[in-house]
Amino acid sequence: MSETNKVEKKQKEAKQPKANNNNTASKSKTELLGAGVKKEEDFSEWYTNVITRSEMIDYYDISGCYILRPWAFSIWEKIQSFFDSEIKKLGVQNAYFPLLVSEKALNTEKDHISGFSPEVAWVTRSGDSNLAEPVAIRPTSETVMYPSYAKWIRSHRDLPLKLNQWVNVVRWEFKRPVPFLRTREFLWQEGHTAFSSKEEADVEVYQILELYKRVYEELLAVPMVKGMKTENEKFAGGLYTTTIEGFIPTNGRGIQAATSHCLGQNFSKMFNIEYENAEGGKSLAWQNSWGLTTRTIGVMVMVHGDDKGLVLPPKIAPIQVVIIPLTFKDVDSTPVREAAQKIAKQLKEQGIAVHVDDRDNYNPGFKFNHWELKGVPIRMEIGPKDLAKDAVVICRRDNGEKKFDIPISTITTTVTQTLDDIQAALLQKAVNERNNKIKTIKEWAEFVPTLNTNSLVLAPWCNVPACEDAIKKTSGEESKNVAEEEKGFCLTGAAKSLCIPFVDQEHIKIPQITEETKCFKCGAHAQKYTLFGRSY
Amino acid sequence: MSETNKVEKKQKEAKQPKANNNNTASKSKTELLGAGVKKEEDFSEWYTNVITRSEMIDYYDISGCYILRPWAFSIWEKIQSFFDSEIKKLGVQNAYFPLLVSEKALNTEKDHISGFSPEVAWVTRSGDSNLAEPVAIRPTSETVMYPSYAKWIRSHRDLPLKLNQWVNVVRWEFKRPVPFLRTREFLWQEGHTAFSSKEEADVEVYQILELYKRVYEELLAVPMVKGMKTENEKFAGGLYTTTIEGFIPTNGRGIQAATSHCLGQNFSKMFNIEYENAEGGKSLAWQNSWGLTTRTIGVMVMVHGDDKGLVLPPKIAPIQVVIIPLTFKDVDSTPVREAAQKIAKQLKEQGIAVHVDDRDNYNPGFKFNHWELKGVPIRMEIGPKDLAKDAVVICRRDNGEKKFDIPISTITTTVTQTLDDIQAALLQKAVNERNNKIKTIKEWAEFVPTLNTNSLVLAPWCNVPACEDAIKKTSGEESKNVAEEEKGFCLTGAAKSLCIPFVDQEHIKIPQITEETKCFKCGAHAQKYTLFGRSY
Repeated sequence: MSETNKVEKKQKEAKQPKANNNNTASKSKTELLGAGVKKEEDFSEWYTNVITRSEMIDYYDISGCYILRPWAFSIWEKIQSFFDSEIKKLGVQNAYFPLLVSEKALNTEKDHISGFSPEVAWVTRSGDSNLAEPVAIRPTSETVMYPSYAKWIRSHRDLPLKLNQWVNVVRWEFKRPVPFLRTREFLWQEGHTAFSSKEEADVEVYQILELYKRVYEELLAVPMVKGMKTENEKFAGGLYTTTIEGFIPTNGRGIQAATSHCLGQNFSKMFNIEYENAEGGKSLAWQNSWGLTTRTIGVMVMVHGDDKGLVLPPKIAPIQVVIIPLTFKDVDSTPVREAAQKIAKQLKEQGIAVHVDDRDNYNPGFKFNHWELKGVPIRMEIGPKDLAKDAVVICRRDNGEKKFDIPISTITTTVTQTLDDIQAALLQKAVNERNNKIKTIKEWAEFVPTLNTNSLVLAPWCNVPACEDAIKKTSGEESKNVAEEEKGFCLTGAAKSLCIPFVDQEHIKIPQITEETKCFKCGAHAQKYTLFGRSY
Repeated sequence: MSETNKVEKKQKEAKQPKANNNNTASKSKTELLGAGVKKEEDFSEWYTNVITRSEMIDYYDISGCYILRPWAFSIWEKIQSFFDSEIKKLGVQNAYFPLLVSEKALNTEKDHISGFSPEVAWVTRSGDSNLAEPVAIRPTSETVMYPSYAKWIRSHRDLPLKLNQWVNVVRWEFKRPVPFLRTREFLWQEGHTAFSSKEEADVEVYQILELYKRVYEELLAVPMVKGMKTENEKFAGGLYTTTIEGFIPTNGRGIQAATSHCLGQNFSKMFNIEYENAEGGKSLAWQNSWGLTTRTIGVMVMVHGDDKGLVLPPKIAPIQVVIIPLTFKDVDSTPVREAAQKIAKQLKEQGIAVHVDDRDNYNPGFKFNHWELKGVPIRMEIGPKDLAKDAVVICRRDNGEKKFDIPISTITTTVTQTLDDIQAALLQKAVNERNNKIKTIKEWAEFVPTLNTNSLVLAPWCNVPACEDAIKKTSGEESKNVAEEEKGFCLTGAAKSLCIPFVDQEHIKIPQITEETKCFKCGAHAQKYTLFGRSY
C-alpha cells in the first residue's frame, strides 16, 4: 500500500483529531465528515453545515443577521478588488453617503418607496430619548443620494456623475432568511450614475451588467443568463432592469445574481435633478443604479459544493494550495517538513496562495478532511518516499483526481496549470448542468411538469404583466413540490419570470420567435423567449 | 511681464468662470477666493468652507451625518490600503459582524455600556410593525463580536485570534457635530484580538499604536504624541488605553487621533471567553481592541490647510500634480496641450497621480484657484514660451514656491523629488508649530494662562483621578476663552489630560520627573509628566 493510500484509509476510518477539541469531541464520526449530510438528500441542512463547518458563516442572536468570518470575507475582498478596479477604469469614483435617511427623502419617489417600505428598519430612539423624527436605515441609497445629485448637477459639464459605494444595507424581510442569499443586513456595492442622454445611460447599464457576469463566470465559475426583467419584476421606480440570473441545480431554482437598472428620468423628476444643457435650456438627468451583493458567495457555494464540503474556484480561494507533509512514526520528519516549506516559498513567490499544514496534533487524514471541507482547490502531499523521488502527489478538490510523482523541479508550472484547469472545469461543469436543466417548451401543459424536473423553462411569451400574474398564480396552484419550503428554504411552488434573455449569450443558445410564435400561456402573439422558474 | 505673472495677475483680479455656473454665479468675488475667510480669523467658518468648497464633504438633512465625497473618500481609501496591508502582515484577518446588536449582548459588560448607552441608536420598528425586541446600532463591536469569540476559542491552539473590520458605527451624540471630527455616523476599522497571555496582548497594543502613528506622520504628515490615557480617560471597560494625540495650532486644541486598548480579561470574564490552556486547565483570554476613524482626514485638513484652501500631503493626495496648459488668444494652443498630455503620460507611468486641466471654459487663473482650494501639491504650468525652452514652471502648494525653466527632459525626477520634499516639509512645519505650543509648567498658576496662549501643557502630575477631576473643574472656572465655543466648535474652556506621554518619542522631548518632583496641581508626589489641554 502506498503512503497516500494508507493515509486515505485513515481518512475514511475515523477523523477525530488527536487533541481533545471541545468543539468536536461530542459529535459523532458521521457528523464530522464533510457536510454531514448528502447535498442531494437534504440540501438545506447540507448548505447550513457547509457554510458553518467551513468557517464561512456563524449564526448570530438577531434573526436574519450572520457573521461573515474571514474564510467568506476574503472572498468578498477578492470580488471587491476585481469589480472596484474595473469600475474605476470606467471613471466611477467611490464615496460614502450616510446609513440613515429621513422619512421625507425616503418617500420622495412613490413607486420606489412602496417597493421597499414594509422592509424598512426605523430608528426611533437614542439612549432613553425618542427622536423628534424617526430615521430609516437605508434599504438602498437612491433617496439618500439624489437630493445631493440635485445640488451638484447644475450644468451639462457636471455630467456624467458616476459614484459608487461599498456599504451595508438593511431590509427587514420576514421571509425565512438564508445566509448570503436572503439576509436582513447585507454588504453590497451600489453604483449611482447620471448622464445627459439616455444613450450614454444605456451603454453603462450593459457595461456594468457585463462586469457582473464576469464576477460570476470568471471569478466564481458560475454561469449566468443575461437578460431583461419584465415589468412585474423590474426595480421599483426604475425604467428598465437588466439582470444576470444563476441556477442552483440541486433544487432547480433560479436566482437573481445582480441587477443593473436604468432609472430613466423618474428619479431626476422627483428629486429635481435638472441641469442647464449645452443649448442653454433645462434638462433632466438620465440615471442608472446597479448593485452586487454578498449573495455572490452563497450562489457559488450552492453550485460547486459537494458532500465533502466547499469547492472553491481557484481565483477566489483564500488558500489555493495546501501542502500536507506526511509524517510517520519512527521516521525523522524534518526533511519532509523542510521540503514542504521550500515548495511553499517557491509557489508564494509566483503569487500562489499556499499554506503548509504542519500541525503535529492532527493526523494527515484529519487534515485531508479539514481542507476538503474548506474547499481548497489543490492538496499537495509529500512523504519520505515522494521526497526520495524529488516528487509530490497532487489532488484536485473539484474532481478528486490524483496525480503521483509530480517532479518538484516543475512544481510551479504544474500548480499554475492545474489551478487554471480547475477554474475552467468548474465553469464548464456548471454550464453543462445548467444547460441540461433549461428546457424549451411551447405549451402551458408542459410548464409545471418541467419545473418539477428541477428545471427552468424557456418559453415564448407575450410580455404582458397580467399574463405573468396568471403564470405565477396557476403554477402555484398546480405545484405540489413544496418539499423545499418545508425544509426551511422558503421556496414557493409558484414560478415567475427570471428574465427575458438577450439573444446573444455565451454558453447558452436562446431560441428566437417567428411571426407565428404564440405565447405559451395565453396564446397571444409571443414577443420573446422568456426564462421562467421557481426561484429564491 | 512673464506668461506666469500675467496669469497670476488675472488670478488675483477676478476668478469668475467664463461659463455661467449656477453654483457660483450668485457669490461675491471674495467668497469665491479660497476658503472665503482667513483661517486665523474665523477657524470654524474657514473649516466649513474648506471642506465643502474643496468637495470633500457635503451636508445632509440628518444632523451630524455628512456625505464623504470622492475627494475625501479617496484619502480614506489610501489610509485603508496602508493600514490594511500592515495589519495583514501581523496576521490579522478581515471579517464582517452585524450592524445590529441585541440589548442583552450590549448590556453584558456594565462599565462598557455605561460609557456608550446615552449615545446608542435603537431600531424599534420595521415597516409599520414594532419589533418584539428593539435592537441597537453598534456604537463599537465588542459586544457584537465577543459572544462568538467565546464559541470559537476553546483551546490554546485557537489563539491568538486576530480579526478586524472596516465598518460604519453610530454614536448619537448631542454635542455640536464637526464634520470628520465628531459625527453621529463615522467610518473606522476596529480590530479585536485575543491572546493566551498578557505579554502577547501588550506587544500588539504597541505595534498597532505605532501603525496609527505612521498613518498620521508618514501619510498625513501630522505629528503625534504617543502615550497612555489616564484612568479617567481610558476606554470604558478596558484595562488600559494607549493613544496618539494630535494638535490643532489654530485654536491650541489637542485631539485624540486613534486609540489602541488592552481590555485585559474584563470582557473575557463577562463573555466567558475561556479556553483549555496548554496545561489542561482553564484560562480567560487576554483581549485588545483598537480603532482608527475618518477623523484622520479632519485633523489633516485643520493642520495643513491655509487661507487658499486644502493643503494635501502628496502621499494621500488624490491628484499629486495638476498640469495647466497656458493658452493665449490668437496663439495656436495645440502644441502646448499636446506637451501637457505627453508629460502627464510620462508621470503616470512612474505612478504619479497627474491630471491635465485643459478645460476651455475656464481661464488659467480660475484653474489655479480651483486646484489650490483642492490642495493639489504641485501645479505645473506650460505656456508657449516655456515650450520653446523645452521647460515648464512648477509651483508648490505648501509654500507657494515657484521654480521656472524646469527642463522637460528631467521632469519625472524633479516632480518625484519635489513631492518628497513637500511631504517632509509639511511634517516638519507641523512638528515645529506643535512643539512651540507644548509648554512645560510646574505650577497650577501657570496652567490656564498657558492654555490661553493656544498651547498644550506638559506638567508633572500625581496620576490620581480625583486630582484630574479638580483640574478639569478648576480650569473650566478659570477659563474665559470660550470664544471658539460660541463660534460653534463646541469646545469648553476646561482642560483635561490628553495622555501621559511615553518618554521615548520621535520629534518631541518629554521631561522626566525626579524623586522631588511634585504634582503641579495638588502638590503630592508626581508620577509622570502628563499632557493636558483643551481638546475636541
